[in-house]
Amino acid sequence: MSGLSTTDTPADSVATNPSQPSIISSSITDASRREPASSAAGTTELAGQSVNALTGHEQEKLETAKKLVIDALRFVPDFPIPGINFIDILPIFQNPVAFESLLEVLVLLIRERFGDQIPDVIVGLEARGFLFGPTLALRLSRPFVPVRKKGKMPGACRTVEYKKEYGKDEFQVQLDAIKPGQTCLIVDDIIATGGTAAAAGQLVELSDAKVMGYLFMIEITNLKGKALLGDKPFITLVEHDEEE
Amino acid sequence: MSGLSTTDTPADSVATNPSQPSIISSSITDASRREPASSAAGTTELAGQSVNALTGHEQEKLETAKKLVIDALRFVPDFPIPGINFIDILPIFQNPVAFESLLEVLVLLIRERFGDQIPDVIVGLEARGFLFGPTLALRLSRPFVPVRKKGKMPGACRTVEYKKEYGKDEFQVQLDAIKPGQTCLIVDDIIATGGTAAAAGQLVELSDAKVMGYLFMIEITNLKGKALLGDKPFITLVEHDEEE
Repeated sequence: MSGLSTTDTPADSVATNPSQPSIISSSITDASRREPASSAAGTTELAGQSVNALTGHEQEKLETAKKLVIDALRFVPDFPIPGINFIDILPIFQNPVAFESLLEVLVLLIRERFGDQIPDVIVGLEARGFLFGPTLALRLSRPFVPVRKKGKMPGACRTVEYKKEYGKDEFQVQLDAIKPGQTCLIVDDIIATGGTAAAAGQLVELSDAKVMGYLFMIEITNLKGKALLGDKPFITLVEHDEEE
Repeated sequence: MSGLSTTDTPADSVATNPSQPSIISSSITDASRREPASSAAGTTELAGQSVNALTGHEQEKLETAKKLVIDALRFVPDFPIPGINFIDILPIFQNPVAFESLLEVLVLLIRERFGDQIPDVIVGLEARGFLFGPTLALRLSRPFVPVRKKGKMPGACRTVEYKKEYGKDEFQVQLDAIKPGQTCLIVDDIIATGGTAAAAGQLVELSDAKVMGYLFMIEITNLKGKALLGDKPFITLVEHDEEE
């Protein structure tokens, strides 16, 4: 263990008290219960509408499972900067019942949106998209393909450059990972500004494959990332306004 | 999609031909078949020995599943530098049969090593440890706790600093993620120099919890990372010498 020294301090000087529940339920919205009028763009709202009704029993299972997932979320006020109420998904993975419920919800939401058309490939974004993307893919008996920052994956890769306000990032997918013509569902834990999700969409198209839609556990509504994704089907479990 | 520009070039100027299989099976060893004499350290070898014999049927399942996993591995010569034969685990996740087999192998290896003592917590390292750690944890009905680089996780965290040859890295675990007294299995895809795995072990101990052992899909034997992990139980599926 030589070479290791330790400290035991809050991350980034944010002092929070984990014994004190900080759930602020008013700041989140169950995405399936919103009124169409609450959507910023009518077109996007249309694309996000359900096309396959679930049975009553499935709808009940969905509601129960969704509640277990939402109850497992934790909120961290003033992270990473003052005024932001950060939503922490990690407690879901620390609770096997919540994690199992998450998978149940996602499978049902995919069925509700796409019916029997299961995506050919689940494409997941580094790093938190890896926390549930592979498990979801296995549940659907489909391949999981990672999108990572440049230089992290071996072999020939496709690359897209994404310009940020200052500087740029480059994302990659392995050259042979997605086959021409495959339908791809792009998944990540959270959609914020939407830049990485849009880059993943472009990597799918560069592979001569098709973006079937996007799936996120949480949409940070105040950042309006959905607008970057065009009119593709958009599935999300929870809407959260970080500034509320 | 504005703001995105694309290139379609090999990663880091490494030209590989994905249509040409590059499996070099002689460079890997099924870890369960090695002779004790091939181990560098007698003590470590002793700690890695089986303590619970599997039934004949389980042993058969293990061998079949292991073969499916090993067959899915891909080798990328001269990555990231000339002379290194890089082992790529990503194809496993692109093949649901291989991924399912991986989980079967890992569950059986854990049973073989620990019998009925299932670890209380699966601790997984960013980012490739996230590809199978959460799925394994769910299969065992146990919490998954991530270890990430400093600043990536919200709320109060424990931090360890790991000195590298040049500079340093800091790893964190959330303060309340691991409870005192819990037994933890630390998992990652590959053990190379062992630094991050050892740092994760120290984070577990800082949480007043117990490192029950370490599990890796692949051990890069020429880097001798196992030596950093003391005499803790060490589970690995495949041994690989990158320089062969």
